[in-house]
Amino acid sequence: MAPQPPKPSAGAILIKPYKVQESPFYTHVAQSTGPVNIVTTAGQIGRNPDGSVPSDPVEQIRQALTNLRRCLDAAGARIQDVMKLTYFIVGFDHTNPRHRQPLLEFLGDHRPGSTLVPVPALALPEIIFEVEATAAVPQYPPESVDVVIVGAGLSGLQTAVDLYKAGLTVKVLEARDRVGGKTYSVPAQGSVCDVGAAWINDTNQSKMFALAKRFGLDLIEQNTKGSIVVDDGVGKLKTHPYGQLLSTAEDKEAIDDVVRIRDLFEETCQQIDISNPVASGRKARKDLDNITFEDWVRSHGPYKEDALNALTIGARAMLGVEPAEMSALYFLDYCKSGGGYMQMRSDLKGGGQYLRIAQGTQSLSRGLAGEIPPNAVAFMSPVRQIEQRAGGLRVVSARGVYEASRVVVSVPTPLYREIAFDPPLPPEKLRLSQATLLGDYCKSIVFYRSPWWREHGLCGLAQSCHGPFAVTRDSSVDEDGHYSLTCFVVGQPAREWMQLSRKGRDQAVLDQIQKLYGPFAKVEDPVDIVEQIWQNEQWSQGCPCPVMGRGGLTEFADVLRAPAGPIHFVGTETAYEWKGYMEGAVRSGERGAQEVLLAMNRAKL
Amino acid sequence: MAPQPPKPSAGAILIKPYKVQESPFYTHVAQSTGPVNIVTTAGQIGRNPDGSVPSDPVEQIRQALTNLRRCLDAAGARIQDVMKLTYFIVGFDHTNPRHRQPLLEFLGDHRPGSTLVPVPALALPEIIFEVEATAAVPQYPPESVDVVIVGAGLSGLQTAVDLYKAGLTVKVLEARDRVGGKTYSVPAQGSVCDVGAAWINDTNQSKMFALAKRFGLDLIEQNTKGSIVVDDGVGKLKTHPYGQLLSTAEDKEAIDDVVRIRDLFEETCQQIDISNPVASGRKARKDLDNITFEDWVRSHGPYKEDALNALTIGARAMLGVEPAEMSALYFLDYCKSGGGYMQMRSDLKGGGQYLRIAQGTQSLSRGLAGEIPPNAVAFMSPVRQIEQRAGGLRVVSARGVYEASRVVVSVPTPLYREIAFDPPLPPEKLRLSQATLLGDYCKSIVFYRSPWWREHGLCGLAQSCHGPFAVTRDSSVDEDGHYSLTCFVVGQPAREWMQLSRKGRDQAVLDQIQKLYGPFAKVEDPVDIVEQIWQNEQWSQGCPCPVMGRGGLTEFADVLRAPAGPIHFVGTETAYEWKGYMEGAVRSGERGAQEVLLAMNRAKL
Repeated sequence: MAPQPPKPSAGAILIKPYKVQESPFYTHVAQSTGPVNIVTTAGQIGRNPDGSVPSDPVEQIRQALTNLRRCLDAAGARIQDVMKLTYFIVGFDHTNPRHRQPLLEFLGDHRPGSTLVPVPALALPEIIFEVEATAAVPQYPPESVDVVIVGAGLSGLQTAVDLYKAGLTVKVLEARDRVGGKTYSVPAQGSVCDVGAAWINDTNQSKMFALAKRFGLDLIEQNTKGSIVVDDGVGKLKTHPYGQLLSTAEDKEAIDDVVRIRDLFEETCQQIDISNPVASGRKARKDLDNITFEDWVRSHGPYKEDALNALTIGARAMLGVEPAEMSALYFLDYCKSGGGYMQMRSDLKGGGQYLRIAQGTQSLSRGLAGEIPPNAVAFMSPVRQIEQRAGGLRVVSARGVYEASRVVVSVPTPLYREIAFDPPLPPEKLRLSQATLLGDYCKSIVFYRSPWWREHGLCGLAQSCHGPFAVTRDSSVDEDGHYSLTCFVVGQPAREWMQLSRKGRDQAVLDQIQKLYGPFAKVEDPVDIVEQIWQNEQWSQGCPCPVMGRGGLTEFADVLRAPAGPIHFVGTETAYEWKGYMEGAVRSGERGAQEVLLAMNRAKL
Repeated sequence: MAPQPPKPSAGAILIKPYKVQESPFYTHVAQSTGPVNIVTTAGQIGRNPDGSVPSDPVEQIRQALTNLRRCLDAAGARIQDVMKLTYFIVGFDHTNPRHRQPLLEFLGDHRPGSTLVPVPALALPEIIFEVEATAAVPQYPPESVDVVIVGAGLSGLQTAVDLYKAGLTVKVLEARDRVGGKTYSVPAQGSVCDVGAAWINDTNQSKMFALAKRFGLDLIEQNTKGSIVVDDGVGKLKTHPYGQLLSTAEDKEAIDDVVRIRDLFEETCQQIDISNPVASGRKARKDLDNITFEDWVRSHGPYKEDALNALTIGARAMLGVEPAEMSALYFLDYCKSGGGYMQMRSDLKGGGQYLRIAQGTQSLSRGLAGEIPPNAVAFMSPVRQIEQRAGGLRVVSARGVYEASRVVVSVPTPLYREIAFDPPLPPEKLRLSQATLLGDYCKSIVFYRSPWWREHGLCGLAQSCHGPFAVTRDSSVDEDGHYSLTCFVVGQPAREWMQLSRKGRDQAVLDQIQKLYGPFAKVEDPVDIVEQIWQNEQWSQGCPCPVMGRGGLTEFADVLRAPAGPIHFVGTETAYEWKGYMEGAVRSGERGAQEVLLAMNRAKL
């Protein structure tokens, strides 16, 4: 593979002074090195995002450090950039320094300076620990390029590659310390597992298939051999061979309901014109945009609960939201962008979940990054300001300032608000950013010694309208001896599950696997669990695709892709085809590059 | 008007991290941006400059924040540059966070990070609040110019304009965020009021009259129609038509005393040679320099108290000092610089207080600033070091470092000590800086719905040897519907008045207006009061002109204007004519420019 972008160097040099007694927990002196931005934080306390405070003191300390980590992330600072920490501790007992273990986990190998201050109280009576940090974030030299791209996910990288190949100079500013965005392949059990986007196909996802071939990646056909397990919440658990109707309903009427609503949805979906969804078909479809997907289902009822439940599982598994949270037209258009509801949900050839990548989908992003110069990507560089000036654009990131003629923003629409645009974005673009909702989308990937489900005639697909997970899929890489079930914890059940401790979350998933698979197979003990909560990721804030509520497409269908002067917008949600998928991301990246080249009269380069 | 110099950008970007609960009182993360100087402060406590501590806890907190504001000012840091605050609070009660209101007033719209640390005690038993700050002050790129001018008051700007017109490159480093120094026009009641220098004339202040014409400003004749009110402290209140002898004395002897000492003073004054005051007249006047003005008056006595009181009011109103605090020769020379005591004190044509400027006197400074390039003035840039090196001078300001062949210092003599000169200034120059005293000079400008004093045949001039104010003058701008009395709180009474709260100060002024005017007119309720305490201004430290005590002129008459190598000195106190007035400032600025041009052999440019 081509050389990858270099990781940023540390901003703080730690120094051991002569004849001052050393500590295993901190270093006495820190020195910033080179040009740096100084980052300071407010004192962080152990409050959860909802304002609650864990009752267990150690959990409270852990939460304060989690908040400090979020503060540092927000400023593009890594642990290695921290120069100094100050702890304020109520009721400190030097014989039981209970902050120490969470702190060592937080610090890793880094040992910045620290001061521990026992105090009689903190700002609120329930708070027993507060921590603040000073960090030094190294600054790259100022640079002037043709185009700055904000975000090194698939869409941003595709834009960068196309522009670079057309002869322009590019700089990709990535907030994380890796490329890939929601393509994120994590090493586990001698293999990798995809905690984000995982599937492509070779039929109607031409971009993805071409990239996989270009980068020499190995494709794995999704396992659909055998039966699936279904729990739609109203009857008993059942198994069906893959491809049969998914329902536990016993009576014919209920099964008819499921079929009828599914077929009606598919039929309506096929009428949508993805180039202009609001005006689809013989009449404008504002009616479909003015009701939620749930109300649309109910309006064609009455239906038995299991018909509703089946579509609820679909909405959750596909977008991480509840049927009441998106407009019917939005969901119809979303499904149509992948060829229709049936095709998008399918694990068979041509379906949305047909092929996996043995090396992980992040290899696609790494492959694209390898096609631009290594120093064209700057990591840990969240963009905080984009200013239009007489001479061009000035982009202020956490690690440097860049001048450019054009900027391509590839972050999800709700994250536009994290950037101070000067002049501000057009009001409709800001409303778009505020109006779109990112799904609650988590994966809990459970590793086993063997694919025990296959031995019992099961393919690893399970569906449940009970939480925490809605769906499982076989995510094994047999060649690596990697056997896993990926559990999709999505929508409303995810919101409750995320409140649990890590241990509680793992147990809840294992319990549900036992409950669903136990009646049909002997469930092995797991060897590892990898989890990913996309909603906790500062630079994603959810997954897979920002969703629009009632009236959203009517208001924003044209706003979504409209440039704001010299600032362009890409990202999978802006795609016409395969929204929310890697294919959509790459297609939007190509569109963004075309826009820039046209605007710069460089189309023919 | 020509484009004005740009305001500096903020040094701190405030960042809201994802999933950390927001607060209305602070922001979790701050990041310095671009090249900055980092500013840290000691913990600030609520001590007054005299060491006393307010007994009211909230006043103590307010004073601590005032001290912090002074710390930031000293380093050229604005509130917007503050990244982090830390509060230490004794007896903190989270149900009654009494620091909050003063803090919000201090912060304005800015919300830096903060940590609140309840503590059992602070360094002194009476202290209940301490606050420290970290700020990031953006740095301009290094620059090399022919001449750096320190201070953008009238004298510095006049020097800059003359040098710029002679073809030199200039940089004016101004500690404040505005031009004008002691010309400061504050918007109020739909008009402006001059809280600093306010009067010019068109007879013997040729420079000021020319500038006013050049900048198209509207002149207002000072109102002297009607009577003045006099309270010289020994008799009853009286009114006299403007221009008559000012005294409440009843007996002829006392009135004769007043006339005699006034005439003697004027006669002596007229003998002074302003180009060489110490050698004035037939014999050297060291004798006049070796006694204070008070002793000089007494030495020609005995007088009744009201004769002394009349001259005390004069000293206070003209220089903000007591008659015992300056040498007789200094005051004589000061008066002579404006044509004599009678002319300097006069509000009639040719007098020191004949014409006001409807747009405010700061318009004169803005006009001058508009005649040099906008980026030739750098705001919030107090100069801290001036180093002479082989290649020239290096001037270190809070926001940048500049190289120059010459430097012109336009700050008041007592402020030379704020700058570290390397090599140090000549010892006599340092002694000058230490020996000169800035007056206690305050204005309390009281706005009314109508000029009620005029309806009762009064011109708005009042004199009083009781505090708080010594003099009032009509400062209305009738065209704007702006009616006000400017009350001069000066000298010893000002020192006591400044100790009061703002509310107390306002009330004391209103009480005195009632006391003086009440017997002769129906005093309206005020609609607004604007006050200015020049002694509290870090970059003025008093007003209008540094005063010399006994022996001062003998020692410093030649030192005052002498350059120190390539460093030149201007400012109204260095003028020959109209010292302490705007006219003097501008004339000194012209003299400074001529010195530089001569020294650089550019006189003919």
